[in-house]
Formats: sequence, structure tokens, C-alpha cells
Amino acid sequence: MRRALALAATPGVPLGPNPRVGCVLLSASGDVVAEGFHRGAGTPHAEADALARAGGAARGATAVVTLEPCNHTGRTGPCAQALVEAGVARVVFAQRDPNPVAAGGTTTLRAAGIDVLDGVLHDEAAHLNRAWTFGVRHGRPLVTWKFATSLDGRSAAADGTSRWISSLASRHDTHRLRAECDTMLVGTGTALLDDPALTVRDEHDRPVAHQPLRAVMGLRPLREGLKLRDASAETVHLETRDPSEALAMLYARGRRHVFLEGGPTLAAAFLAADLVDEVVTYVAPLLLGSGRSAVGDLGITTLADAVHLTPTDVTVLGEGADTNVRLTLTPQRPLAGTDQEDT
Amino acid sequence: MRRALALAATPGVPLGPNPRVGCVLLSASGDVVAEGFHRGAGTPHAEADALARAGGAARGATAVVTLEPCNHTGRTGPCAQALVEAGVARVVFAQRDPNPVAAGGTTTLRAAGIDVLDGVLHDEAAHLNRAWTFGVRHGRPLVTWKFATSLDGRSAAADGTSRWISSLASRHDTHRLRAECDTMLVGTGTALLDDPALTVRDEHDRPVAHQPLRAVMGLRPLREGLKLRDASAETVHLETRDPSEALAMLYARGRRHVFLEGGPTLAAAFLAADLVDEVVTYVAPLLLGSGRSAVGDLGITTLADAVHLTPTDVTVLGEGADTNVRLTLTPQRPLAGTDQEDT
Ligand SMILES: NC(=O)c1ccc[n+]([C@@H]2O[C@H](COP(=O)([O-])OP(=O)(O)OC[C@H]3O[C@@H](n4cnc5c(N)ncnc54)[C@H](OP(=O)(O)O)[C@@H]3O)[C@@H](O)[C@H]2O)c1
Ligand SMILES: NC(=O)c1ccc[n+]([C@@H]2O[C@H](COP(=O)([O-])OP(=O)(O)OC[C@H]3O[C@@H](n4cnc5c(N)ncnc54)[C@H](OP(=O)(O)O)[C@@H]3O)[C@@H](O)[C@H]2O)c1
Repeated sequence: MRRALALAATPGVPLGPNPRVGCVLLSASGDVVAEGFHRGAGTPHAEADALARAGGAARGATAVVTLEPCNHTGRTGPCAQALVEAGVARVVFAQRDPNPVAAGGTTTLRAAGIDVLDGVLHDEAAHLNRAWTFGVRHGRPLVTWKFATSLDGRSAAADGTSRWISSLASRHDTHRLRAECDTMLVGTGTALLDDPALTVRDEHDRPVAHQPLRAVMGLRPLREGLKLRDASAETVHLETRDPSEALAMLYARGRRHVFLEGGPTLAAAFLAADLVDEVVTYVAPLLLGSGRSAVGDLGITTLADAVHLTPTDVTVLGEGADTNVRLTLTPQRPLAGTDQEDT
Repeated sequence: MRRALALAATPGVPLGPNPRVGCVLLSASGDVVAEGFHRGAGTPHAEADALARAGGAARGATAVVTLEPCNHTGRTGPCAQALVEAGVARVVFAQRDPNPVAAGGTTTLRAAGIDVLDGVLHDEAAHLNRAWTFGVRHGRPLVTWKFATSLDGRSAAADGTSRWISSLASRHDTHRLRAECDTMLVGTGTALLDDPALTVRDEHDRPVAHQPLRAVMGLRPLREGLKLRDASAETVHLETRDPSEALAMLYARGRRHVFLEGGPTLAAAFLAADLVDEVVTYVAPLLLGSGRSAVGDLGITTLADAVHLTPTDVTVLGEGADTNVRLTLTPQRPLAGTDQEDT
């Protein structure tokens, strides 16, 4: 299963609305017969990929798959049926298919007399596809809001200077997280004021091969010459101020994980609409005493009404004077069905 | 030396301007002959205490002391001379005496033919007496500024509610840190608005035996009935707005470690005067979007002028939704002579 998960996580695929899936076929003696993974919409599913490579050797094999084999005919045929036809003896999978349209693979397999075991390395698999799972459940992309702040909650100094509040290590870390998403989103304010490139670069400051979509939200036009309008990645201008509408537009384009990078106005709009699913903040050891706050007005007047979050991770990045602290948090709310609850 | 340090750290002593010192006398075979520690101004030094308990058995012994034996006659005689007269064969100590008036003990001991070894567990000893050492060097108390903040740098909501931004675990931790200081300081704003008791309580919410001094700074009178004016601890009203003057008043009263608890106005005044030596902040996983900032205006307009700090510790307190993150930091500045440099 570890190998299947590694195949599923092959960098760069799939870019689109499909889950990441890996499959390993093992012979009765435990040798690898064939491997496969899903390369994105329109290409074979991981099981089909592995079966095609295995040919007749699939007979009697154990199929180790990261996601429950699907049961429906989309652009490709149902995988459960393909496994039955190939004569596979046993199927082991990690995550149950949350998609009601595709589910039922286990029933089909068992009906054909195939031994099925599920839940192996479930949490890892669910994490790998958490944005996709979230999309299936909620019909919108998962939103991770990232912000950099001074110790006293400022995102910029009084004169607007904000580069660089966070350390080099934090900026590298941000690029790593951007690469895990398929869309980066900023408001027109940030786009016009900061003129960010919003590309994903590696540790050597070189652009990575698969660039996420760059999305800008707001009514003002994006003037020519902005870095966001260069050819280094695709850009979309979402001419709305409604966070739900913006997410619907992105979902319709096959986007499943939005990395919301601000500014304070846009972040406040998403928070107020309860459309932030995860918060990542880089706290820099600075005090400013004035300047823009990391988050705009939320209409909260008393402490009891604060947005409460649960920290899920605290990581120290860098050393000495360059130490930043990264906090990852989940808003507390009665929103059902994140991956954690998927067992 | 560990035992000597433990003796020095006996809770509650000394309350005053003297260092904490412990002494263990060991026989040639390594057995403990006698122990002693300093109980505060006017009482015998640790070495004298141990020598008195040892009597004639001190002859030929090794004296293990946390601080270099003093060489001057104050309210008690010089310890170096007392050790010579008692016939001690060897002296091992941890921290060199930073006080030029008292230093020179090593020279006296060596001149008398006594074997002297220094620097054993130096860092632990220096830490134990860091406020005292700081005072000897800088002629003012060490200032630790503590603040509690939301993720977005707010110390209170828009309507002023601030109890409790930080979690129970953070509040317990604050009481532990208060107990390590000899003075708690707030502005009249906090005193009049919040009416805090500013007492140190243990995990069971019972007041500890030795209460630090409660100090309030600012010109407005402290009305009767304020909790600060009750009998549970000593309180002083420093009728000034000048941080240096306030610290001088406290130093003159034998105070060596001030725990500055705000509010934002007073914290800003101390930061602007470069009179904060250590920052402890409890970050709560909340977003407010408005309300008082944790620190008032510092006159900083551009990012390059931010107050830069170096994190020395990051600790996660509590669990789940009650998780707070405590950051301890030291301002970066060209201020010479903290204990770390004392080797
Ligand atoms: N520290 C950080 O992590 C960080 C991150 C990003 C930005 N920043 C700083 O933030 C500053 C920009 O702040 P900002 O708040 O102006 O930027 P912003 O949030 O990126 O953009 C605000 C603009 O977005 C549009 N908009 C879209 N949806 C909206 C809604 N629901 N409600 C209101 N407006 C909406 C509005 O412009 P239209 O009139 O065009 O609709 C609005 O003026 C920059 O100086 C940047 O450096 C800091
Ligand atoms: N989150 C936290 O950690 C935390 C901690 C403490 C307080 N707070 C909150 O902070 C609020 C109080 O804020 P605050 O800023 O008014 O309180 P403050 O800083 O305690 O008091 C300010 C007052 O101190 C006096 N003062 C003394 N030295 C001064 C100087 N150098 N410059 C200016 N004034 C000086 C002034 O009053 P005079 O006219 O009397 O001189 C001034 O109005 C409370 O609501 C409290 O809940 C939060």
C-alpha cells in the first residue's frame, strides 16, 4: 500500500477534478506483477493502468489500490468489473469511494467471489485526496487560507511595506504548500498593489513544471504588465466579490484546492462566509505596533464571538533570528465531513 | 553542583536584591559534610551557612558553590577568607561573580594555596541568577514583557472583553512565570479597567506563600476597592509615565525582575524606550478582526524599522481546541552583557 500511495502521489498528476490513485498488483508469492496510477481526467484509472501492464499475469493476483475501485462507467469502464474480468483473487484498498455515483465497487467484487479488505493506511490515502474528497462531499473546492504576520498580527507596516515579513524558510514552505493546491487566489487589492508573480518555485528559485492556476477576485480590471498576466502560468480573473460564486467558478473549472493568499479584505470575506477550511499562518518574530492587520473586520464585537480554531500542527521553521513559527489550524464549526471523519 | 543549585533555588528565597547561592561541603571521600544556602539580604552567605554547620569537619573538604565566593566585607564577612580559615582544600564554583565590588575571591583562595575550579554547570547557575546578574551589570531590573494575543494580534475584542483570550494552561503557565519574578507591573489603564488581583496562584488556584510586589504605573489615582489594593500582597503605585524612572524606583526597592503585564500602552512605552529584555507571548487560536492590538503604536512606519526579536523557545500548551502556543523571544539589540555572554 505504501508503494501504491507513492504511485498515486506522483508529482504533477492529476491536475484536475479527479482523485489521485495508485495500484500495485502482487502475485500469490508477493512479487510485484505490475503497477499503475491515474494520470488525470480522460486517462485510464490506476487499476486499468496496472491491469493493462500485467496482461494475463493479473490472474490470481492481489490488487492493492489506494481508493475503492469504482463501479460506474464514465470516460473509462468500471474498475471493479475490470478486476473481476482479469481474474484478480483479492483486492485491498485504503479509502472508500465517497462519491455515491462511483461507489459500490466492493459489492461488485464480493459478488464475484473476490476477497476484499478495506481501510489499509486509510488516513494517508484520505489525506492524499482530501481536497478531492471534500469536493465530492461539498461541491466546492477546499480552501486553505495562508497568511504571514508579525507577532502583533500585522501583515504590513504603516507605509504598506510587507516584503518580507516572513523568513526565507517560510517562503520556501509556502511554495511547497502552493504546489499541493491547484489554485492560488488573491484579491484585486493584492494583485494591483503588490504585483505578485504567484508562481511556484523550487528551493533553487526555479519555477516547477506544473503551475497551479492563478486566480484574482474582485471587480477592478487587471492592467496589462502585471506579473500575473505573464505566460508563466494560467491566470483567471473572477469578476465577483462573492466568495461562494468565486468558488463555484473554480469548481466548474475542475479546481479542488484553493490556496487563499489574501489580502486582509478577501480573507475576511471568506472567513465571514465560513468558507475557510484550513488556516496556515507564518508568525514572524517582529513587532510593528501599526500597519494593516492580517485580517480585515469580521464584524466581531465581543470575545465570545471570536472565530475559534483548533491547531493541528505547530512547526518551527529556521533558526535564530530567522526563526518563524508555522501554525496550521482548522476552524471550529459544525461543518460535517472532513476526511478525518471518513471512517 | 546539582545539589548546590537545588539548594540555591529553594523556593521563596532570597526575595530581594541578593543572588541565590547554594553550597555543599564534601569530605575527601566524597561524602556530604554540610550544606548551606543564602536566605536573603542580612542573612549569612551560603558558604558561611555551610561552614557554620560543618564546624571542624570543614578542614580538608571541597566546597562546591554556585557562585564565586565573595571577597568583600558587607553585612557579612568575605566568604573567600572564611573558606581559607576553615581549612577547606578545594573550591569548585559555577558562576564567576559579576559584581566588581565582590569579585576577586578566586585570587584570595589561590593565594592561600587552595585549588579552585570554576565554570562547573555555569549555564544553569547563570540562569538561576540571571535577573541579579543583569541588575549588577545594568543597574536596573530585568524586564520580561508578557502578553496574550489572538492569531491576528488582538489583546481584546472591540467591546474590550479580553477574558479569557488565553487558555487555562496558559494562565497556569503565567502564574508560574510570575512566581519567578519579584514584581508584576501594569499600567493604570489595566488596573482601572480590568481590576486584576495580580496575585500568584498555584495549580489549585490557591495563592502561593511568597507574593511578588504588585506595581502600577501612571498618573491616575488607584481608587479604593481595587483588588490591587487588598491585603493579599504588597502594592506600589509608581506615579510616573517614564519607564526608566519606574524601573529605577523598583531597583531602589531591591527589585530585580519585573514581569510587565501590559496593557498595550505601557508595553509600547517600554519597547520604544528599549527597556524590554524578554518577551513571552501566548498565542491563542482565535481570530477577532478588530479590537485593541496587543501593542500600542511604536512610531514604526516601515517594515525595515520593525522591532526584531529572536525566538528562544516555542512551546505548545494544552491540547485540541485549547491549544495555545507560547513564544519566548529576546529583542535584537546591541545591549551587551546578558548572562549568556558571561563566560
Ligand atoms: N501578510 C500577508 O500574508 C499578505 C497576503 C496578501 C496581501 N497582503 C497585503 O495586503 C495588502 C492588500 O490588501 P487588500 O485587503 O486591499 O487586498 P485584497 O484582499 O487582496 O483585495 C481587496 C479587494 O478585493 C476585491 N474584493 C473581492 N472580493 C471582495 C469582497 N468579498 N469584499 C470586499 N472586497 C472584495 C475588492 O476590490 P474590487 O473593487 O476590485 O472588487 C477589494 O478592494 C497588500 O499591501 C499586501 O501586501 C499581505
Ligand atoms: N492581552 C493582554 O495580554 C493584556 C494585558 C494587559 C492588558 N490588556 C488589556 O489592555 C487594556 C488596557 O489598555 P491600556 O493601554 O489602557 O492599559 P495600560 O497600558 O495598562 O495603561 C495605560 C495607562 O498607563 C499610564 N501610563 C503609564 N506610563 C505611560 C507611558 N509611558 N505612556 C502612556 N501612558 C502611560 C497612562 O495613564 P495615566 O493617565 O494614569 O498616566 C495610560 O493611560 C485592558 O482592556 C486590558 O484588558 C491586555
